[in-house]
Amino acid sequence: MFKKQISDLLENYLKNIQFKKYPNGLYEGIEYILNLGGKRIRPQLVLLSCKLFGGDAKAALPAAAAVELFHNFSLIHDDIMDNASVRRNKPTVHKKFNENSAILSGDACLVMCYDELLKLSAGKQFKAIQLFNKMALEVCEGQQYDMLFETKNDVSVNDYVEMIRLKTAVLLGFALQLGAMIADADEKNQTLLKQLGEELGIAFQLQDDMLDTFGDEKSFGKKIGGDILQNKKTFLLLKAKDLANAKQMSVLNQLIQSSTNNDDEKIERITSIFNELNLKNLIELSIKNHYDNAIAIIKKLSITEEAKNELFDFINQLMKREK
Amino acid sequence: MFKKQISDLLENYLKNIQFKKYPNGLYEGIEYILNLGGKRIRPQLVLLSCKLFGGDAKAALPAAAAVELFHNFSLIHDDIMDNASVRRNKPTVHKKFNENSAILSGDACLVMCYDELLKLSAGKQFKAIQLFNKMALEVCEGQQYDMLFETKNDVSVNDYVEMIRLKTAVLLGFALQLGAMIADADEKNQTLLKQLGEELGIAFQLQDDMLDTFGDEKSFGKKIGGDILQNKKTFLLLKAKDLANAKQMSVLNQLIQSSTNNDDEKIERITSIFNELNLKNLIELSIKNHYDNAIAIIKKLSITEEAKNELFDFINQLMKREK
Repeated sequence: MFKKQISDLLENYLKNIQFKKYPNGLYEGIEYILNLGGKRIRPQLVLLSCKLFGGDAKAALPAAAAVELFHNFSLIHDDIMDNASVRRNKPTVHKKFNENSAILSGDACLVMCYDELLKLSAGKQFKAIQLFNKMALEVCEGQQYDMLFETKNDVSVNDYVEMIRLKTAVLLGFALQLGAMIADADEKNQTLLKQLGEELGIAFQLQDDMLDTFGDEKSFGKKIGGDILQNKKTFLLLKAKDLANAKQMSVLNQLIQSSTNNDDEKIERITSIFNELNLKNLIELSIKNHYDNAIAIIKKLSITEEAKNELFDFINQLMKREK
Repeated sequence: MFKKQISDLLENYLKNIQFKKYPNGLYEGIEYILNLGGKRIRPQLVLLSCKLFGGDAKAALPAAAAVELFHNFSLIHDDIMDNASVRRNKPTVHKKFNENSAILSGDACLVMCYDELLKLSAGKQFKAIQLFNKMALEVCEGQQYDMLFETKNDVSVNDYVEMIRLKTAVLLGFALQLGAMIADADEKNQTLLKQLGEELGIAFQLQDDMLDTFGDEKSFGKKIGGDILQNKKTFLLLKAKDLANAKQMSVLNQLIQSSTNNDDEKIERITSIFNELNLKNLIELSIKNHYDNAIAIIKKLSITEEAKNELFDFINQLMKREK
């Protein structure tokens, strides 16, 4: 019920953001990616958190919009950096327009976040922008680490988890904290919500890694084994390198270094080593660990039991990947 | 005297901005371009304007830093878009590091502007950020127009002047307005300063166009004729197309469309058409026009005659391109 209500509020608010028509391509790039949809998880976290602490979700709408605009800014620029052609089954912004135009659309999108934050009530603007800046720099750091890891040979599992915390999780933590801050939650609760979002974000990303190798193609929504084919240094590959015996390591290195024409064989052979090393269980354990941390944090919040249940439900839906 | 004083204050402040060391390349890119130097015209305008309206230049230092950081953000991203290899005789950020890293350094640099604006006194932050956002979007618009004009065939001289106003001049207008705002100048004076900066910025850019064709290589500091070789749609080329007779137009079009191996000949022949059309006088007239507007605005400001003279001096130095 509430979910539908905040979703409608949010979509209506986003639809009413004014984008200038000219110059061609600049604001169009932002409108284009915003209209590709997506689940709007991050802005919904802002509104939910505000509501659970007794605030008026409407007052948090600009904050929710800032979070969604920031998410889309990072998608526009990351897609350029990753040379990604497709997002949500549509061309990415730099493919639809061009790279230069997409750099500028991202820049303008980042500036528009601050326009939204200035719409918050006078007492909230300063802290909102301060928290936003910290989060935004951390997300840039996470993306930079992600790119540096591509050519770095001694990335540890801990390095990887810290990278996904920065790149993915701090935005969820910010979203939850911001909503609570707008609802006048105290510092202690704000900090808990930030931690909650980060645990959740890490759990979510690890689950994504897990499903990319062990998931079901139909429900996961993309081809299984993509990370393996790209030699992506996810939790699974890094853990495998930690645990492999000499023979497994030699096979792994050979499969990673050689460019094979047989994608399916590469996926199958690497997955089989992952299975020998019991990695599905290990990653599920790590996901459960972060998920349990999140649940423990919820229990500490100064909100009603009903509100806690609402938060549980939202998180469980998120982790189930329901659309 | 005062100039040396604010310059020292500024350099000292910029030197003390904290840049994290990790991840490699991210903040380094920002430090690198800031340390390439440059004349720091824009932040000096903030401090000068603050001082002329009786404010404490020290209180305006974060605003000056925000303006300098923004300028450098735009240089980092523009250099990627323009595929420029050299800036101030050194490799551009994306050549020194790489393109992806430079996109992120620019993003982080833009966020850091807001960190500086939050250091202003509480009563000034909101308006400073509001004005900054408007300026920042206009600069993005200017850069987008500049790129769109490369493939657009019906760009008018007015379109061009509006493009350089957005791309170059609004930042100068913002710098002057911001300094005055911090010194509690009234709205009328703030608006005048914004206009002053814009007139100045346009005059300055037109002078750059003029010198690129008609300047002296030694004092201009770069090779004469660069714009001509790139078929850049500056005031000169656009005005030439407006005024050329059929024969001149045919020669112009031929020189623009054909890729010649003889750069010097192309420069010479196009410059000779510009001379036939008296374009040096025409562009100097336009520069003088914007310069005179700037001078007329200074006269209207509610500041002492002494302060007006200081502003005249600064502007004249700027237009003389003294280092």
